[in-house]
Amino acid sequence: MSSTIITLLTDFGYKDHYVGVMKGVILGINPQIKIVDISHNISPHNILEGAITLSNAFSYFPKGTIHVAVVDPGVGSKRKPIVVSGEKYIFVGPDNGIFGLVYNQLKEFKVYELTNPRLFLSPVSVTFHGRDIFAPAAAHLSKGLSPREVGEEINEYQKVSIPVPHIGEKIIRGNIIYFDFFGNAVTNINRSHLNIIGKKEFLKVKIGEKVIPRIFHHYQEVEKGKPLALIGSSELLEISVREGNANKLLDLKEGDEVTVLI
Amino acid sequence: MSSTIITLLTDFGYKDHYVGVMKGVILGINPQIKIVDISHNISPHNILEGAITLSNAFSYFPKGTIHVAVVDPGVGSKRKPIVVSGEKYIFVGPDNGIFGLVYNQLKEFKVYELTNPRLFLSPVSVTFHGRDIFAPAAAHLSKGLSPREVGEEINEYQKVSIPVPHIGEKIIRGNIIYFDFFGNAVTNINRSHLNIIGKKEFLKVKIGEKVIPRIFHHYQEVEKGKPLALIGSSELLEISVREGNANKLLDLKEGDEVTVLI
Amino acid sequence: MSSTIITLLTDFGYKDHYVGVMKGVILGINPQIKIVDISHNISPHNILEGAITLSNAFSYFPKGTIHVAVVDPGVGSKRKPIVVSGEKYIFVGPDNGIFGLVYNQLKEFKVYELTNPRLFLSPVSVTFHGRDIFAPAAAHLSKGLSPREVGEEINEYQKVSIPVPHIGEKIIRGNIIYFDFFGNAVTNINRSHLNIIGKKEFLKVKIGEKVIPRIFHHYQEVEKGKPLALIGSSELLEISVREGNANKLLDLKEGDEVTVLI
Repeated sequence: MSSTIITLLTDFGYKDHYVGVMKGVILGINPQIKIVDISHNISPHNILEGAITLSNAFSYFPKGTIHVAVVDPGVGSKRKPIVVSGEKYIFVGPDNGIFGLVYNQLKEFKVYELTNPRLFLSPVSVTFHGRDIFAPAAAHLSKGLSPREVGEEINEYQKVSIPVPHIGEKIIRGNIIYFDFFGNAVTNINRSHLNIIGKKEFLKVKIGEKVIPRIFHHYQEVEKGKPLALIGSSELLEISVREGNANKLLDLKEGDEVTVLI
Repeated sequence: MSSTIITLLTDFGYKDHYVGVMKGVILGINPQIKIVDISHNISPHNILEGAITLSNAFSYFPKGTIHVAVVDPGVGSKRKPIVVSGEKYIFVGPDNGIFGLVYNQLKEFKVYELTNPRLFLSPVSVTFHGRDIFAPAAAHLSKGLSPREVGEEINEYQKVSIPVPHIGEKIIRGNIIYFDFFGNAVTNINRSHLNIIGKKEFLKVKIGEKVIPRIFHHYQEVEKGKPLALIGSSELLEISVREGNANKLLDLKEGDEVTVLI
Repeated sequence: MSSTIITLLTDFGYKDHYVGVMKGVILGINPQIKIVDISHNISPHNILEGAITLSNAFSYFPKGTIHVAVVDPGVGSKRKPIVVSGEKYIFVGPDNGIFGLVYNQLKEFKVYELTNPRLFLSPVSVTFHGRDIFAPAAAHLSKGLSPREVGEEINEYQKVSIPVPHIGEKIIRGNIIYFDFFGNAVTNINRSHLNIIGKKEFLKVKIGEKVIPRIFHHYQEVEKGKPLALIGSSELLEISVREGNANKLLDLKEGDEVTVLI
C-alpha cells in the first residue's frame, strides 16, 4: 500500500528549522507526498498532550495516511523508535506513550521496532530523530515499504491512560484533562457517562465553588463572558466561557475536579 | 468549475488538532486539492480582524480558489452557514460578517445558505462546524459542485463596516483599525484620501501628542527606533517604528485617532 | 532546470495575511509547485537569526529547491533584491546578510541583482517585497527561468559572520549564538573544535559560575530539570536542561561566554 499523505505532530514549535527540515527529508525520498501539519505547538515534552491531540485528529484523515508524532524527551536514550500498523493508518514515532491513546481506538494493530538502518539518515544524531529516523522511515513507508520491513514485531510498548471518571447513581466525578487554544477545559467525562445518570438538560456541573445550572447546547445560550458547560466536538464535556477563556477567567487548571449532579 | 486551491483562515490557533482535522476532512473528499493557510492566529472570536485579513489576502490567489473562513463565536446557534459565489472566487463560512469586507470588493456575487446535509459530516457537532460543515462543503465545491446546489439563495446577510475617516479641507481624521504582527498600526486612511488634501511629502501625521513631520517613503529614512508614517502594502496609511513595534513603543491601541494635516 | 519545491523563511509571523499572500502569488504563476514553510517566526528584523535558521535547513531539501528568505528591515531602501544560484539550490531574497552563512556552505555560486521588472507584481510596494518581488521571481525561476535572466551578476554582496571561538591548548572560549524554541543554547563551538583539545568525555563546560562536569551523549543521562551539555543536531555544542528551558532556568542570553576545559 502506498500513501499520499504524511501528517506531522511535534512539540518543535514554529521558530526553528526543525519542522521544515523534516519536510525536506520526506520530500527528498518521496517527492509526490502531501505533508499536513497537525500541530507543532504541543507543550514541550508533554507526551500526554501530544497523545490527546493525535487521538482527536488521526481518524479524520483518508485511509493510508501515515501519522508521524514526535514528542520525545527521551530522544537518543534507550526508548525505542516504533512503527504502529493499523487497518487504515500507519504511525511512526518514539515508544513513549505518544501512541498510547491511539491503541485504544484501533481494532487491530501491530507494533514494530524501527531498527532498519537503511531507512535512516546517516549519521543519526542523538537529539533529532525526527529528521534522522522518523521522517525518512515515514517517507519510505509512504512509497510502499511494508511495516514488517522496518524491524521486529514487539509485544511490549508504552501505554498511557487518562483517569476514568467515577460514576455513582446521581453523580459523576471527573477531571479536567486538557485546555484547548481558546481556553476551553476538556474533561474526561463523555456523552455516554452523562446518559447513565440522566438527561443532559437536567444535569448540573460543579467546578470548585462554581455551579453551572445545566449542560447547554451551544455557546450563545449564555451571555457573553459567562461560563457554560457543553459537549464538545470530541464528545467530551467541556467547561467554556462564551467568547472568553475559561482557563483564565475561571482560574482552572489541569486535574481540577469536575462534578456532574442530577 | 473545479478548483485546485482551498485556503483556510480561522482563529483556531496552532496548538490543537482543529486545523489539521479540517485538512484531513478536505483531503478525504478531494485528494488532489492544495490547501493553503492564510492565518489561524486571528484573535479568538474577532470577526472584524478576520474580515480585514481575508480582505487583504483573497484577491492574490488564482481564479477558482475557494476561501474558507471560520471565526465563529456563534457556532451552533441560529447564524447561517453560507457560500458566497463571486466571479473568480467562492467563499465558505458563517454569516456573521467575516465576509463583510469581501462583499465591497466583489463586482457581482450571490450568497447561498448552506443547508444541503449531504455535504456535511454526520452527526454535525455544535462547536466545530469548521470540521463538520465548512471543510466538507468546500471540498465538494472544489470538485465542481455548483454553489446553487448547497441551498437557497439569500438576500440578507451580515455586513461589517470599518469607520470612514472624516475628510476636511486641510485635515483628515481617521483611526487605527488594526495592528499587524510587527506592531505596525494600520489606519482607515488610504492613499486616495491623502491625495485629496495634498501631496504626501507635505503632510504631517498626529497621534495623541506625537507629531510625525511627513509621510515617508520607506522605513530606512528615519533612525532605528524612531516613529514614521508611510503607505503600507494595503494602500493604507500606517504608523510604524523603524525595526521596532509601534503598538508597544508608542503605546497605541485600536480605535486611537490619527490626524493628517497639511 | 525547473523546480518542484519553493521554501519560505520570513519574520512575518502567523497572524497576518502576509505569508498566505506570498503563496497565492506563487501558485498563480506556478500552480504545480509545492511550498514548504521553514519558519515565519524569525524574531522581527533579526537577520542573523534568519541566516542561522536557513543555514541549518536548506541542504536537507532535494536538488532544485528554491529557497526564499525574507527578513528585510531595509525593504524599500537601496538594499538590492538578489538571486543566488548554487549547484543544487537557488536562493531569493534581499542582499542584507540573510544568505551570509549560506555562501560559506556552497562550493560554487553566482549572485545576480534581481532587477527584471517583468518578474515583479506591479506596482511594487515599498513595504512588502515578499509579495511583489521575491514570491513572483521565485515562481518564475521554478518554471525554468535561468537566474541569468533576473538581472546582472554582481560581485559585492553582504556577508555575515558568526564569532569564531578562541582555541587554546587546553581551553576553548566560545559564545552562545542562538536559542532554539526549547530554550537550548546553541554555541559557536563545533565537534571539530572539541576534538582539538580532547575527547569529549573528559571535557568540562563552564557558563558563568556554572560548571557542567562533562559533555553528555543524550538528555536522559542527567536528572529531569538538571543542566547538561551535548553536541546537537547541527554539530554544535549546546547547553540544555533536561525537559526544561536552559535559556530561562540558567538565565542565559545571546553572546554569553561558554568555556570548554580539559
